[in-house]
Amino acid sequence: MAAAAEAPPRGFPEAEFARRTEKAQAAMADAGLDALLLTTEPEVRYFSGFLTQFWQSPTRPWFLVVPARGKPVAVIPTIGADCMARTWVDDIRTWSSPQPDDDGLTLLAQALTELAGKTGRIGLAKGKETQLRMPLGDFERLAWSLPDVTFEDATPILRDLRKVKSEREIAKIAHVCDLVSGAFEAAPRLFAAGQSDTEVFRSFKIECLKRGVDDVAYLVGGAGQGGYGDIISPPSGRTLREGDVLILDTGCLFDGYFCDFDRNFAIGRADEAARRAYDVVWRATEAGLQAARPGATCAELFAAMQGVLEGGGAPHGAGGNDVGRLGHGLGMQLTEWPSNTPWDRTVLEPGMVLTLEPGMTFAEGKVMVHEENIVVRAEGAELLTRRAPPELPVI
Amino acid sequence: MAAAAEAPPRGFPEAEFARRTEKAQAAMADAGLDALLLTTEPEVRYFSGFLTQFWQSPTRPWFLVVPARGKPVAVIPTIGADCMARTWVDDIRTWSSPQPDDDGLTLLAQALTELAGKTGRIGLAKGKETQLRMPLGDFERLAWSLPDVTFEDATPILRDLRKVKSEREIAKIAHVCDLVSGAFEAAPRLFAAGQSDTEVFRSFKIECLKRGVDDVAYLVGGAGQGGYGDIISPPSGRTLREGDVLILDTGCLFDGYFCDFDRNFAIGRADEAARRAYDVVWRATEAGLQAARPGATCAELFAAMQGVLEGGGAPHGAGGNDVGRLGHGLGMQLTEWPSNTPWDRTVLEPGMVLTLEPGMTFAEGKVMVHEENIVVRAEGAELLTRRAPPELPVI
Repeated sequence: MAAAAEAPPRGFPEAEFARRTEKAQAAMADAGLDALLLTTEPEVRYFSGFLTQFWQSPTRPWFLVVPARGKPVAVIPTIGADCMARTWVDDIRTWSSPQPDDDGLTLLAQALTELAGKTGRIGLAKGKETQLRMPLGDFERLAWSLPDVTFEDATPILRDLRKVKSEREIAKIAHVCDLVSGAFEAAPRLFAAGQSDTEVFRSFKIECLKRGVDDVAYLVGGAGQGGYGDIISPPSGRTLREGDVLILDTGCLFDGYFCDFDRNFAIGRADEAARRAYDVVWRATEAGLQAARPGATCAELFAAMQGVLEGGGAPHGAGGNDVGRLGHGLGMQLTEWPSNTPWDRTVLEPGMVLTLEPGMTFAEGKVMVHEENIVVRAEGAELLTRRAPPELPVI
Repeated sequence: MAAAAEAPPRGFPEAEFARRTEKAQAAMADAGLDALLLTTEPEVRYFSGFLTQFWQSPTRPWFLVVPARGKPVAVIPTIGADCMARTWVDDIRTWSSPQPDDDGLTLLAQALTELAGKTGRIGLAKGKETQLRMPLGDFERLAWSLPDVTFEDATPILRDLRKVKSEREIAKIAHVCDLVSGAFEAAPRLFAAGQSDTEVFRSFKIECLKRGVDDVAYLVGGAGQGGYGDIISPPSGRTLREGDVLILDTGCLFDGYFCDFDRNFAIGRADEAARRAYDVVWRATEAGLQAARPGATCAELFAAMQGVLEGGGAPHGAGGNDVGRLGHGLGMQLTEWPSNTPWDRTVLEPGMVLTLEPGMTFAEGKVMVHEENIVVRAEGAELLTRRAPPELPVI
């Protein structure tokens, strides 16, 4: 196995968090917001650098407050104090969590009142693709305890900030894309007819880890004779057979940043319909690569790929794709704003990292999906993944 | 490496989902609820069997409605229809997601009105350790669109149902505990002075996968001379040195069920303070194993372990534990209700799966934490993990 590529440095210099915070504060000033209240892992990490898998436990809420000026303030369970103290955040307020009645609420209300005032306007994420990571009942109690404070939707601010990645962020995504590209290229050695799909998934996860990813946070796939039908299921125990088409779609992590791409393989042989579908979807990706230039919209990017899919003349129509979009933003989350859909008018800018994910139903119950990861540069799309081969690989 | 133990069957028979649903419906009738609205991965999976890592993508909301009678009804993005159709759920209503304006809301409102009536009382999880996995703004719009419907907290119903595990659930947890016990026993072969902690984490993840876990969803740990201080951080790149105490704490998965336990290792040699702390915490776990009997409360379980920790005479006091509890429920989530705290009066029942997790600060900045997984049986605690050795192992 080839030695792993040189990994970029972990973490970010303080200046990067300062820049993110200042940009948020400028947008908050424009929107008349006195503070941001952040509750989810990526939101808290984006402004603090706080990186831990401890979020897997749903027990404890974690809060970060971005005031109108100055550094963010952490209001977190004591168990996270040491880990938070290693970030650029100075003001860390803790309570011993869990607590039966007041699980950080009084502490949070005090911080909000102090930082935003008793009649402050506080922004939080309420829009598409967001959630509130605290008990709904506690949020209601918080709002009742601060009757003159208003909570407003700050989704556009957070979305705009995060959609353009810094060079350091891009380097992390590029690194994990490179590692996983290598793992996919090892497929002929890893996968074979007679293997259970459970074993296929397991060997691929081990290959990715050996090559240097931190975690294989997401791996879905499917296989079927002449094509697969379902691309979001875990392995079923089914045995790979000659004539199968296998897809694996993975989101691996390096230093908290995801790749998200897939590869298709024919086992032993490939029939004509699968080869043809592969070619159509590969060319749709090419069209996406050409279209992904600064100034184009996500809707235009969608149209470029969709045009090739529709021209492909699949019997069930290229519109018979149930993914709802042909790619999306990528970064600290497996999927991020924006979406490559007919209705997303987001304008591409240099530094945006996207997936191109054209897919189509090419026969009853048979789907073909491709996915590549790119960064938008001034001169156009730059691939972060090593491009899938132009013909369906047979292994 | 020993061959993996025989794995229990994946999935559950329909009867198990029917039983869960009927029990929920009986509790709903008692509480006067006309339906439950479920939005999170474990809630949806508990009542449907819907298992996919696709939840990693925050883009799309997923809904399951448990009516007063009959099977649950799924209201989900089209991309999940095939996967949901393989569960016992028959009534699957889909929309192509994401959508810019109405991302499933009209479909959900129709289902709720049909199943619970225009003036229905709908239960959802609003309490401790829960969250609402849909955009807060969409939930507000849903509530406005159903002005005569009331949304009430159903946390106690969900918590009571899930706290006692079936034998099939216990078998899955026992299996993953067994696999990971083997991985920890391989530590002398895996870990050594001179290795970076990044490499320690990586080799442990690969070992767990090789032994048959589906995923290493959670791995945290720490190492330091004579003891570690922080147990929730990812690896830092620090090199293991002779005289270090290393802890790894992992939540691995088998068929959607977690283990959650840790092991401690001394590298090369162990000093007296670390050995002594290990002994105190090991004995605290023994006290927990004795106390975990049906009829005892979580508070009593806490007191049994805490008594040993306090008797251990740690210079900084056993109370200097910042975890906030000495163990918790375990199952479809890494941590579940209840908690072993002085205030949790939950009464232990046969079939409850718990972690015993005593920990203490034994010197400035030095913590010692042990963790085992048990199931409560009529006759007392049954270990699911292979018990940690009584003395700090030196490797």
